[in-house]
Amino acid sequence: MHKGRIEAFSDGVFAIIITIMVLELKPPHDDSIEALIALIPVFLSYVLSFIYVGIYWNNHHHMFQAVKSVKGSVLWANLHLLFWLSLMPFVTAWAGENHFTCRPVAFYGFDLLMCGVAYWILAKVLIKHHGHDSVLAKALGDDIKGLISPLVYIIGIAIACYAPMVSCMAYVAVAVMWLIPDTRIERVMKD
Amino acid sequence: MHKGRIEAFSDGVFAIIITIMVLELKPPHDDSIEALIALIPVFLSYVLSFIYVGIYWNNHHHMFQAVKSVKGSVLWANLHLLFWLSLMPFVTAWAGENHFTCRPVAFYGFDLLMCGVAYWILAKVLIKHHGHDSVLAKALGDDIKGLISPLVYIIGIAIACYAPMVSCMAYVAVAVMWLIPDTRIERVMKD
Amino acid sequence: MHKGRIEAFSDGVFAIIITIMVLELKPPHDDSIEALIALIPVFLSYVLSFIYVGIYWNNHHHMFQAVKSVKGSVLWANLHLLFWLSLMPFVTAWAGENHFTCRPVAFYGFDLLMCGVAYWILAKVLIKHHGHDSVLAKALGDDIKGLISPLVYIIGIAIACYAPMVSCMAYVAVAVMWLIPDTRIERVMKD
Amino acid sequence: MHKGRIEAFSDGVFAIIITIMVLELKPPHDDSIEALIALIPVFLSYVLSFIYVGIYWNNHHHMFQAVKSVKGSVLWANLHLLFWLSLMPFVTAWAGENHFTCRPVAFYGFDLLMCGVAYWILAKVLIKHHGHDSVLAKALGDDIKGLISPLVYIIGIAIACYAPMVSCMAYVAVAVMWLIPDTRIERVMKD
Repeated sequence: MHKGRIEAFSDGVFAIIITIMVLELKPPHDDSIEALIALIPVFLSYVLSFIYVGIYWNNHHHMFQAVKSVKGSVLWANLHLLFWLSLMPFVTAWAGENHFTCRPVAFYGFDLLMCGVAYWILAKVLIKHHGHDSVLAKALGDDIKGLISPLVYIIGIAIACYAPMVSCMAYVAVAVMWLIPDTRIERVMKD
Repeated sequence: MHKGRIEAFSDGVFAIIITIMVLELKPPHDDSIEALIALIPVFLSYVLSFIYVGIYWNNHHHMFQAVKSVKGSVLWANLHLLFWLSLMPFVTAWAGENHFTCRPVAFYGFDLLMCGVAYWILAKVLIKHHGHDSVLAKALGDDIKGLISPLVYIIGIAIACYAPMVSCMAYVAVAVMWLIPDTRIERVMKD
Repeated sequence: MHKGRIEAFSDGVFAIIITIMVLELKPPHDDSIEALIALIPVFLSYVLSFIYVGIYWNNHHHMFQAVKSVKGSVLWANLHLLFWLSLMPFVTAWAGENHFTCRPVAFYGFDLLMCGVAYWILAKVLIKHHGHDSVLAKALGDDIKGLISPLVYIIGIAIACYAPMVSCMAYVAVAVMWLIPDTRIERVMKD
Repeated sequence: MHKGRIEAFSDGVFAIIITIMVLELKPPHDDSIEALIALIPVFLSYVLSFIYVGIYWNNHHHMFQAVKSVKGSVLWANLHLLFWLSLMPFVTAWAGENHFTCRPVAFYGFDLLMCGVAYWILAKVLIKHHGHDSVLAKALGDDIKGLISPLVYIIGIAIACYAPMVSCMAYVAVAVMWLIPDTRIERVMKD
């Protein structure tokens, strides 16, 4: 099967997730500066989640550059990733509205962890479908970022009830790490 | 007419339906575990509907692989399917918010039934357009799952006011049946 | 300029308009049949608007089949059409919630009229761009439906405060007229 | 990397932003003319923002016509633009609901300014990627509108607390200036 429609459908879901999160940033009914300041936690959680969904879209884009074809299992592994990403607006709003307290921060980290796991599964399914000698397998070869991220998320979840701000900083640190573009695939495809 | 735009439009509608359902999962205003536990029925109905819309997208994707061209009647049969799918967020939220009682569960099943009927009509319209000797007609040949599903939905609707949980399990069972990928089309197209 | 992106963007807007209208169909908080019956007017307005947006998408699809290229004025004529279509969820919800009284019904008709006018402008801009001897100009030649529709809308608006139900029936009649597929373009392109 | 998916994803985000803004135009619960008149400020802010997002989509469309390929930095510069555009529904609703008072008008201008800055950065990143002798660099050569716009926005922000209506008129004037189609790229590409 061609990869065109799975890319188009995923792009649609990514675009909607990244955009509907802003609906949680509800415009205040008065025009005071105080009303705006009260929105800062929700805004910060929006910015972090926007960057995370952007990172996933970028990595998804890079990975599918090297994809030749898809089959049923790839469609479902992809839907599984989109499911956990679709919960981002929920955990984002919950964490922002409650000013990053214990449980919402732990759940935010849990959703990031499940997105990471789902992405890893999708990569494995794609490598299995393309073979271990494929460009895709080489391009995804040594995924150090993909190993560090879940570890940091788990630490973030574990300490969320003792030091939620440290957890948040951990999530920010992972995002910064991923912002440095992943040149593996570009490099391998050039070779 | 080319099939490109009907696929793009359908992908857009599928992507929006599957994503806006999460808006019904409203983040609680406090950060207690109790508030989160209270959301479990809404969450479960979201998961089931996500899987159902995913199944329809997958089957739609498979079926249109074998489609060569479209015409007016195909566009309307497709819109008819999208109409019933667009009611999924409504029936999902109604069933989840009311903790799967009699009437919401019956309506959830009714919408699944109408989606199934609409999909069957779309398949018939496509086969008529392509001819009974086409790859598409052969690929959709003996649709046992498509016969069992409406029967189970009707049973689920009938017993929803006596044993709504059994109805829900029936809907889950149909979803599990469909999760096993439909290899008919892939097989026939290879031949 | 290629027509690919204007089609993709329009498909996105059509898909979102047709889908977010269902958000106005708010699931009742109790599971009674009365609560569901109270939603019938909102549901009926949803069905009518779904069909109207579907008709516009179908006609847009047909018209752009014959389009060879686009330029700035086409982009803006298209955005103008999408603007009036984007007000459909608003007029639909207003008419449905108020059970089709005078002013909401008149405004519903006004928006349908403006959509019709915007579509006519888009057709004229496209014909001017392609030339009066083009396939597009021939395909759009004698647009009887396009002449009847605005007249019916104007009558519907004029009588909305005396007989709103007759106005609604007039809008339904126009929709039924358009459901009969427009074979002009398919016929001319075959020649 | 091909530019196909960055266009598709951007089209999706543009389509969602331009469409969800209408959700802030909440249908009144009664059918009086007064209720409709009370919506006029929100409606006017919707019209202005619809035109602005339309302008950005048009310019984005034009610019990417001359784009040959993309890389990581282009994806992020594009996401940065989409971030500031995604705040348009928020600033639109805040300005409209508060009838264009001081602070909401200043913030509306600030978001327009940041969109302008983000678009300028995207153009610079694309020119750097394609080289200063590329068609793209020539096409974007002397961007007088792009220089005037931020100056007008800054003036609008500065005077928003003294004469918010003048600020609004300044924003409208910039929009009108951009409505005159940008023929630079079409001209250079023809050469």
